[in-house]
Amino acid sequence: MATQDQTVQTNVLKEIAGLILQTDLRNNPAAVSTPVYHTVSRLTGVADPYKKCKARTNAEARRLLPELQKIMAQSGDSLQTALHLAAAGNIIDLGIGHAYDLRKDILEILEHPFAIDDTEQLLQELKPGRHLLYLGDNAGEIVFDSILVNELLKTGIEITFAVKSSPIINDAMMEDAVFAGLTESVRVIETGSGDIGVNPTNACKAFRNAFDSADILLGKGHGSFETCVGMDRNIFFLLKAKCDVVAGELGVKKGDIVFKHQKA
Amino acid sequence: MATQDQTVQTNVLKEIAGLILQTDLRNNPAAVSTPVYHTVSRLTGVADPYKKCKARTNAEARRLLPELQKIMAQSGDSLQTALHLAAAGNIIDLGIGHAYDLRKDILEILEHPFAIDDTEQLLQELKPGRHLLYLGDNAGEIVFDSILVNELLKTGIEITFAVKSSPIINDAMMEDAVFAGLTESVRVIETGSGDIGVNPTNACKAFRNAFDSADILLGKGHGSFETCVGMDRNIFFLLKAKCDVVAGELGVKKGDIVFKHQKA
Repeated sequence: MATQDQTVQTNVLKEIAGLILQTDLRNNPAAVSTPVYHTVSRLTGVADPYKKCKARTNAEARRLLPELQKIMAQSGDSLQTALHLAAAGNIIDLGIGHAYDLRKDILEILEHPFAIDDTEQLLQELKPGRHLLYLGDNAGEIVFDSILVNELLKTGIEITFAVKSSPIINDAMMEDAVFAGLTESVRVIETGSGDIGVNPTNACKAFRNAFDSADILLGKGHGSFETCVGMDRNIFFLLKAKCDVVAGELGVKKGDIVFKHQKA
Repeated sequence: MATQDQTVQTNVLKEIAGLILQTDLRNNPAAVSTPVYHTVSRLTGVADPYKKCKARTNAEARRLLPELQKIMAQSGDSLQTALHLAAAGNIIDLGIGHAYDLRKDILEILEHPFAIDDTEQLLQELKPGRHLLYLGDNAGEIVFDSILVNELLKTGIEITFAVKSSPIINDAMMEDAVFAGLTESVRVIETGSGDIGVNPTNACKAFRNAFDSADILLGKGHGSFETCVGMDRNIFFLLKAKCDVVAGELGVKKGDIVFKHQKA
């Protein structure tokens, strides 16, 4: 996607081979793979290879919005439906490379219960005035996240939404939050870097403060799970398990949707 | 397939990363990838990870043999049908990793003409007493090759069939030639090594002599094509183009079957 120049492609391969040699492969997948994407950008001179894809999935998701809002209006349990829609949005993951049919997959996911469902525990956490930091994941998906954010705001909690500061795969950045209308409903901050998931080393002060002070964390997608699992924090993971490694770690089947509470 | 031990898997990854750094990636794919398979075998201690797969595909192909012989008996052009069957057998390629349904795919391939069809040129070459070296490819596939070998023998030519000396992916070895009954109809020799395709550097004297003295070469599959394309030899390539790179080189579409003459 970044270049068709075979000499540059070969240079990328060689440099990534060198990276593999230097990398402790017991690190989490997000930490291991982030430098690969940055290497591609540096050697090809294409800072954001997924730029067009992100715009396309944003537009695709927004076209579905009236239908999603109708689903919300007709739902007997709007929080549960919003959680399902946000999980459905997580199929928009261009880093894992599975084909998907957005509309079809969403309707299917709405019919399926979470393989792990800690909604009851979330309900206990949602008290007016408490602060939730929502760790965003991908462009496109962020339109679905906005539905959940608006639903959560009804409980009286305060929400901060985090996006990446610079391009990494198709992860949402500030322009995507603007596109999804999130900047109009909650405070949106940047992580301080273009790392997959949460990387405390590269985080900016604003993100670190929000992360450290939040009463509740909501981590979307593989990246948040891979980098925050095992942390001594009150965090809810909301994702579709898209590979065998993450599914195995969660004790679910590949393809399952999960809403899992990790207690502090 | 060779091991579930993650420490060993990591060691394999690291060593292969080192290989990539040292490898001239402009080499042909067979030459580039052969050391990868040998590294897996050396570090896992599993000399032949595809052993069971080879036995399974051999058995699968032989179960189809009565049906294939019926197809041959009913054919109005038995050489063309035998060439098609041998091309169909080339779908049994576990190194490229596409799923296949043997019986279904064969019947489909029989209906499809070669995208490049140099059968007429082969007919001109088939004169009694001339010597053809048949460069075998995979186990399982070798059962299909035996049908073509028997058909070619009817023209009065002499045939030598070459198999690999040691395991490489699911390539046919002497035991597979025995299983397919080839050793009973023609001389079967080994290449001298476990290289994909033809590697003159590692070839044994018997293979080199047969290769150098043959009037006609018949190269099965990707490996033969990748290592012999451009050689100053009278060679026919018989394969299914299973990836974009080989299809592009041949000027055909991925999935096409090809019977291409390369003149000396």
